[in-house]
Amino acid sequence: MSESPATIDPESWSCPMPLRDTERIVLGHGGGGILSEELIENLFVPAFGGRHGPARDSAVLPVDGGRIAFTTDSYVVQPLFFPGGCIGDLAVNGTVNDLACSGAMPLALSAGFILEEGLELSVLGPVVEAMGAAARRAGVRVETGDTKVVGRGSADQLFVNTAGVGVVPAGVDVSPERIRPDDVVIVSGPIGEHGVAILSVREGIDFGSPVVSDSAALCYLVRDALAAGDVHALRDPTRGGVVAATTELAAAAGVGIELDESRIPVPEAVASACGFLGLDPLQIANEGKMIAVVGADDADAVVAAMHARPEGQGATVIGRVVAAHPGMVVGRTAFGTTRVIERDLGEQLPRIC
Amino acid sequence: MSESPATIDPESWSCPMPLRDTERIVLGHGGGGILSEELIENLFVPAFGGRHGPARDSAVLPVDGGRIAFTTDSYVVQPLFFPGGCIGDLAVNGTVNDLACSGAMPLALSAGFILEEGLELSVLGPVVEAMGAAARRAGVRVETGDTKVVGRGSADQLFVNTAGVGVVPAGVDVSPERIRPDDVVIVSGPIGEHGVAILSVREGIDFGSPVVSDSAALCYLVRDALAAGDVHALRDPTRGGVVAATTELAAAAGVGIELDESRIPVPEAVASACGFLGLDPLQIANEGKMIAVVGADDADAVVAAMHARPEGQGATVIGRVVAAHPGMVVGRTAFGTTRVIERDLGEQLPRIC
Repeated sequence: MSESPATIDPESWSCPMPLRDTERIVLGHGGGGILSEELIENLFVPAFGGRHGPARDSAVLPVDGGRIAFTTDSYVVQPLFFPGGCIGDLAVNGTVNDLACSGAMPLALSAGFILEEGLELSVLGPVVEAMGAAARRAGVRVETGDTKVVGRGSADQLFVNTAGVGVVPAGVDVSPERIRPDDVVIVSGPIGEHGVAILSVREGIDFGSPVVSDSAALCYLVRDALAAGDVHALRDPTRGGVVAATTELAAAAGVGIELDESRIPVPEAVASACGFLGLDPLQIANEGKMIAVVGADDADAVVAAMHARPEGQGATVIGRVVAAHPGMVVGRTAFGTTRVIERDLGEQLPRIC
Repeated sequence: MSESPATIDPESWSCPMPLRDTERIVLGHGGGGILSEELIENLFVPAFGGRHGPARDSAVLPVDGGRIAFTTDSYVVQPLFFPGGCIGDLAVNGTVNDLACSGAMPLALSAGFILEEGLELSVLGPVVEAMGAAARRAGVRVETGDTKVVGRGSADQLFVNTAGVGVVPAGVDVSPERIRPDDVVIVSGPIGEHGVAILSVREGIDFGSPVVSDSAALCYLVRDALAAGDVHALRDPTRGGVVAATTELAAAAGVGIELDESRIPVPEAVASACGFLGLDPLQIANEGKMIAVVGADDADAVVAAMHARPEGQGATVIGRVVAAHPGMVVGRTAFGTTRVIERDLGEQLPRIC
């Protein structure tokens, strides 16, 4: 995908403004003293596009009257770098996409780092720069942040929390409560790539053709979809995949959802990897896809609007909302049989995001 | 302090709505499946005061036109429970206080948990309930959240990130840029209690009289101070203590600050603990104190407004802003001599918040 960064090589990174006496994170980088300030000023501020206004404990942002969206996610993905991205752009894209699920365009992001003592700066640096680049692609800035350092063995390298504030444009009303029978269910592109990309590097398994994470910000895709038709509800199929997203929508709306399994776009490499590992592609995490529930009359226009964007090339209708079996998702197979699609109790893949 | 919770006893806690088959966190509690949902619905939602509206990826909040403040902090304090509070109320109070530093009243909080597999629910439960109680005391709600679980040994029990959105009332303008020579520096009460409380339990040292963390939300104190006089700038003296807060203000404003060290309120137990450990009370973290820089004519009124609140009983003038030595903080000792007050390179006490 044109908007995804190339895979990052920490080996080749060097800090544009070196930190004193160290190539590694020490406890003092989280202490609120001079080392903390140096980390912020020499790494974070340049990566996030410079500072506007004096350093302060919170960012102050002008807003017009209306509605804001507010969300947070912590990221613990392993490995930190994977085909198609790293924990940094994932943390930005994921939070931008959670805002987009409310129909909001991002206004500001925060970044909270928990670093393990001894972490190489050549790992932290590319992560922070990937966050800055991903934020620029999404038209937003990291406006406020925090860094804590814990001793060796008290965390696994690096965790990132991003929170986001977005603006819900006037007239936009995206909520599961608006879902009605006969609505159409759209997915913005092929599924399963993020989870399989992580697995392929983590487990060192070669699935034939390489699978690249779909990590991408979807705020512009959603903006264009909202302009094209009456989008009732949105959900990004991250942890738990399409199954979690659709079952949550069905439960929240008190409706049934019928998925046409033969129409769900599963790339061949994802299908073969899932077959090999005994996983259900519908439960694999995506980080650059959106499920949209749309009034039937507007489905074609919304799909067309998605097709007009690079991150929505593979958008397609995958199902519809029904009055029957409220709260339940049913899959119709290629053979015409149906099955109840249920969430797992726990998770298939830990630390996928 | 009346607003601080009593020390919490995880031994006596039981989950109001038991989770299935487990007294401990398992990886599946972070997987986005049924276990995740159960943790949210049976523990988080009740602790945070119930749900309004359907579950969704981001909270949508109405705002009037104007300015919002936005901030984040991660919390990694050890031990999780200490005299005067726990990581939960600390995470709420700290983020509310960062908003208050911009003159903002809190509008919404987020909570992002990173949990270690095997964490006892009897530890998580009281932490979450303490967050809910602290949020209620501050007049705000936890509106959105996220939970990740990592394997044993990949985190130390439990980390919490809180982000916060606040509303800056019309006419309020709190920023280091407004600081002028002859302004007065006020602290809202005695210093050093949080850091010494943590140390006393962590190191098992008995400093004579017990020291209790000052962890408290200061949004009402700040609101009343702003109403009483022209508050130019605010900073909460957390990591790095009064030294970090005042040096940051001096640097941001391009002014000097002169502290009258004999007027800085240091409780006897804090002083003796710091003497024993070779620490500077001015560099010890506080979690319920505010440094205010105020126009000289309004100093008495602002101190009086702080005195009228339980969390500001010990408010007092501790110094003044000078045109000399811009960016530098100087302490005047009881003997009339002066010393330059500088931040440490790193930190005195890791994992203090």
